[in-house]
Amino acid sequence: MPELRKDPVVGRWIVFSPERQIRPERYRCEEMPPTKPEEDPFLEGHEAYTPPELYAIRPHGGAANGPGWQVRVVPNRFPALRVEGELEKEAFGFYDRMNGVGAHEVIVETPHPQLPLEKQSLPGVTRVLEACRSRVQDLSKDLRMHYILIFKNQGAKAGATMPHAHTQLIALPVTPIVVKEKLCAARAYYLEKDRNLFEDILKAERKSGDRLVFENDGFTVFCPFASRFPFETCVMPRRQQADFHASSDADLVHLAEALQKTLGAYASALNHPDYNLILHTAPFRRSRRPDSWTTLDADFRWHIEILPRLTGVAGFEFGTGFYINPTLPEEATSVLREATLHG
Amino acid sequence: MPELRKDPVVGRWIVFSPERQIRPERYRCEEMPPTKPEEDPFLEGHEAYTPPELYAIRPHGGAANGPGWQVRVVPNRFPALRVEGELEKEAFGFYDRMNGVGAHEVIVETPHPQLPLEKQSLPGVTRVLEACRSRVQDLSKDLRMHYILIFKNQGAKAGATMPHAHTQLIALPVTPIVVKEKLCAARAYYLEKDRNLFEDILKAERKSGDRLVFENDGFTVFCPFASRFPFETCVMPRRQQADFHASSDADLVHLAEALQKTLGAYASALNHPDYNLILHTAPFRRSRRPDSWTTLDADFRWHIEILPRLTGVAGFEFGTGFYINPTLPEEATSVLREATLHG
Repeated sequence: MPELRKDPVVGRWIVFSPERQIRPERYRCEEMPPTKPEEDPFLEGHEAYTPPELYAIRPHGGAANGPGWQVRVVPNRFPALRVEGELEKEAFGFYDRMNGVGAHEVIVETPHPQLPLEKQSLPGVTRVLEACRSRVQDLSKDLRMHYILIFKNQGAKAGATMPHAHTQLIALPVTPIVVKEKLCAARAYYLEKDRNLFEDILKAERKSGDRLVFENDGFTVFCPFASRFPFETCVMPRRQQADFHASSDADLVHLAEALQKTLGAYASALNHPDYNLILHTAPFRRSRRPDSWTTLDADFRWHIEILPRLTGVAGFEFGTGFYINPTLPEEATSVLREATLHG
Repeated sequence: MPELRKDPVVGRWIVFSPERQIRPERYRCEEMPPTKPEEDPFLEGHEAYTPPELYAIRPHGGAANGPGWQVRVVPNRFPALRVEGELEKEAFGFYDRMNGVGAHEVIVETPHPQLPLEKQSLPGVTRVLEACRSRVQDLSKDLRMHYILIFKNQGAKAGATMPHAHTQLIALPVTPIVVKEKLCAARAYYLEKDRNLFEDILKAERKSGDRLVFENDGFTVFCPFASRFPFETCVMPRRQQADFHASSDADLVHLAEALQKTLGAYASALNHPDYNLILHTAPFRRSRRPDSWTTLDADFRWHIEILPRLTGVAGFEFGTGFYINPTLPEEATSVLREATLHG
């Protein structure tokens, strides 16, 4: 059973996953070896290589765990957290621990072995988002889960270990510290000003225009004023919505277009950089906890961060929480905006 | 002039350093090319390749910026922050910014082109620590500076761009968020329990012994209970001291031995892994600010974190602030302890 341990100083939880254990000499293999087709567990016809599927889109029907799918969601074979069991939160001498209960799923974006997300058709990207929405809706019913993170590691420098295009989902028994910080800030802002922080950021960005990369009826893509990484972008819904999984079908089509344009601009302007994509949505259990960040339908807005991994994270970043970024977001914006126009 | 911008949601400051700007196609060179001796600015005899020195140890005398030194501190040629100028904190539309005033220095650990810190003699490592202490003492007099981070990036995966052994120092006009979190936690613990949090961690570790790697009269080295990275270690002074730069000569000899043993254990047990080393000390300006974490001589203790970069930082870590670690600290400890005994 994986184990969660809490840092006694900063309150950070660490997931210890012995099933993902690797020998010291194996740690170093940073380059991702291309998977041979016969070894690719995400290929059509290889459905038996994965645990039984949790969700799939099969437009022409067909049995579960067989071919004929366009998107398929399966449990991670080497999960960081396990669905079975109880949390058993407890003191461990001076420290705090709990069992690593949660879910770790893989959204296989396409049956094709080499089709990156930005090269998919608009319906193709939309299907991936539908699969994410459906899984979050399902997992939100499990009362042990407080939060779901949807994320995508593209390329070895971004932590991917499998080249076949996929997104991941981890459901957690606690609301993560990074999300709590955003929720607290949004709440404090709302209480002080009676306005939504994310709406005000969007207004500031649309008024200035210097950091606007792309916009359609549903979403605005911009390079954040205090971007951590060169060419970092934020994809923000234009209408107030705390929960990603409350998105309408029309919302998902608009989001698919925004992602396609942005990831396409990265691919053409920066030569297919590795990147991390993170979706921050509101926690599920907000009525059960008395904290100040729990009534956030009006003050928090779900959004996506895309972090190209062109620069590393080193001692300064770990030691301060600050980042050194050599590229101003205004410069990054002009490069990316140009690429979306000619993409 | 570099610029600091504040994230309006989480309050994180980002340092924009146009002088460190690189073209998009250059970002990807992750492997550090070996520096040719004739191009190594840190080699003895190449003193003119760097800005004028700020500190040096020359046991047999000799002029500044000439040969004969054992340790030498120079300004970074491509500084993330600049010493000249005023902060000019200001609103920038909806956002906050200030000038990138600070200091960015390089402690060249040795004149030899290929001598890692753990292979240096005990007096050699002690000299590096003396240079750090001296620079912090000097910079603490500049009233614009609130905090100094001493850090070391060893190897390309840890962000190093220069193979010649060196440590870095960045003086900042604000106390970083990561340090504030530790200061707040230490203060709250002290107020609640009338005990020092770091002393209690040390007591818990010495009582259990399961995570103790090395100990001498001055310092204890242990793998933290909630380690973020496999084989992460913490080097903690055994006597209460908030400021690293108040360390005595005897303290620095003890610290040098603890570092030598720990880094030597990494080199032998893990085959010279890349790592980040971070020194967290108390901020200087604690009497000037009314915050609750400003009277911390009793509640905060300076310490060092060493983070081997065997695993990456990916979407899950960025999205949650949690870390997935495949190696329990108890297992890491037994590997490292064995290596210190036979090192």
